[in-house]
Amino acid sequence: MTPFLNKLVIIGTGLIGGSFALDLKRLGLVGEVVGVGRSPENLERALQLGVIDHASRDAATAVRDADLVLLSTPVGQMSGILAQIAPHLAAHTLVSDAGSTKRDVAALFRQHLGHCLDRCVPAHPIAGSDLSGAAAARYSLYENRTVVLTPLVESRPETVERIAALWSACGAVIKTMSPDEHDSVFATVSHLPHLLAFAYVAQVAARPNAEACFDLASTGFRDFTRIAGSHPEMWRDIALANRTALLADLKDYHAALATVISMVETSDGAAMAELFETARDARTNWFQRFKAKS
Amino acid sequence: MTPFLNKLVIIGTGLIGGSFALDLKRLGLVGEVVGVGRSPENLERALQLGVIDHASRDAATAVRDADLVLLSTPVGQMSGILAQIAPHLAAHTLVSDAGSTKRDVAALFRQHLGHCLDRCVPAHPIAGSDLSGAAAARYSLYENRTVVLTPLVESRPETVERIAALWSACGAVIKTMSPDEHDSVFATVSHLPHLLAFAYVAQVAARPNAEACFDLASTGFRDFTRIAGSHPEMWRDIALANRTALLADLKDYHAALATVISMVETSDGAAMAELFETARDARTNWFQRFKAKS
Repeated sequence: MTPFLNKLVIIGTGLIGGSFALDLKRLGLVGEVVGVGRSPENLERALQLGVIDHASRDAATAVRDADLVLLSTPVGQMSGILAQIAPHLAAHTLVSDAGSTKRDVAALFRQHLGHCLDRCVPAHPIAGSDLSGAAAARYSLYENRTVVLTPLVESRPETVERIAALWSACGAVIKTMSPDEHDSVFATVSHLPHLLAFAYVAQVAARPNAEACFDLASTGFRDFTRIAGSHPEMWRDIALANRTALLADLKDYHAALATVISMVETSDGAAMAELFETARDARTNWFQRFKAKS
Repeated sequence: MTPFLNKLVIIGTGLIGGSFALDLKRLGLVGEVVGVGRSPENLERALQLGVIDHASRDAATAVRDADLVLLSTPVGQMSGILAQIAPHLAAHTLVSDAGSTKRDVAALFRQHLGHCLDRCVPAHPIAGSDLSGAAAARYSLYENRTVVLTPLVESRPETVERIAALWSACGAVIKTMSPDEHDSVFATVSHLPHLLAFAYVAQVAARPNAEACFDLASTGFRDFTRIAGSHPEMWRDIALANRTALLADLKDYHAALATVISMVETSDGAAMAELFETARDARTNWFQRFKAKS
């Protein structure tokens, strides 16, 4: 089976969808790429850069006869888009997405694409960046990066295989799990730290001595807060979409922090050293593995 | 005034003290460097690498006739060392340190060196690293880095100037503030995030799905948790030493997190977007300034 696509439609022509299109073009795995978006300037840029072959502001028309429609918009826009495109999907069109949460996307697919769930696979390419827009798209973005597929029970194995093959061709490592599992893991490793970092920077900024603090903040601060530079609306949508799993993690963390506070309050050095050592060892082990695979 | 030192004694011959010695040697600002430490292997390495000229395991003997004694051990060891060296300091010997907390060091200087406080200046070179030991010492570590001096009311202006001149010669930017101010600022920009990162990684490691979490953690996780790879005992000492300021910050953060939890609980997207935007803007502004000066 060749995963070759005669026509790929990217809805949301930015870093994620654009980089996917670029790699497939270079690999000769796609005939025509149509980019759909709301910003004429961004679409024009995508055309100029060769990220897409045709631009459209109308998703319903664009998806006709597509082999694959990839939704790479913020998750908050997907419901409207799915409603628009649902009546216009051909009998062979596959649908996937690139959203950071999967339980909600699975539910949206189920709501709008009930007639073709066998051809749907929610997915999450883990290649975030603080860059965005078509101009940020680049070759090999997915080299050695993970793409999580969260097939529905209805998804046909052939659908999952073909979408996996396309991402694999871009150099990605494929992992498969349920939408619930995905959201629980990403609440822990991504959504929680984003909220912690946002809350932390907001607290520093609100201090009476904020000026002196920012003046003396250094590389530890820089790295710890990098994710607080992320897109506010995108992260609001993620927090809303993954509310249940995120809340559980936030509450666990809040409780863990109460324990830390009591360690500091009682000057319990032994408990602190033990906690810090557990964390240091886990982080060091993780980082060795992460470096080895990236 | 030349800041030239006939004899510099580094107590704790690691990254911080060693890099200071290397730069002063290269600049011709020091005649002889004596390294004091507990590990014979580390001292041997420091001699081999030319970081020090002589090694000693006995601080009391080593400090005789020193122009400057720099304590670059963990703060937890300083009381014992100061008690040992106090009777052996010459009338012209200056004493400084490189500890991450300053209120406690100021108190230790006051406790042990009451007879020569005019020649003491607590200091904090901001050049942390996950590397340590004499082998980690390198030239130009302090280039464009900040060194905070927290003079005592008793510190003579000449003492402060000479120590400032030495650090400036290494390329450092000098800031002067009170020990209290220092500890309050560093609780906020350094100690709090370290504890938050330690607590976070320990929580992930304790999850039933820790394996899956670590497997899918990516660059955001890597940067947010880098400081959780820091030295457990060193950070226990810092948390104990800066207990008051750190507790205030921890409690503020705990309260801020309760607000975040209630935003998520009530799906208050507007409040989240506002919080995230405040943080994003503050972080982006800070990073522009930080990049410009580093």
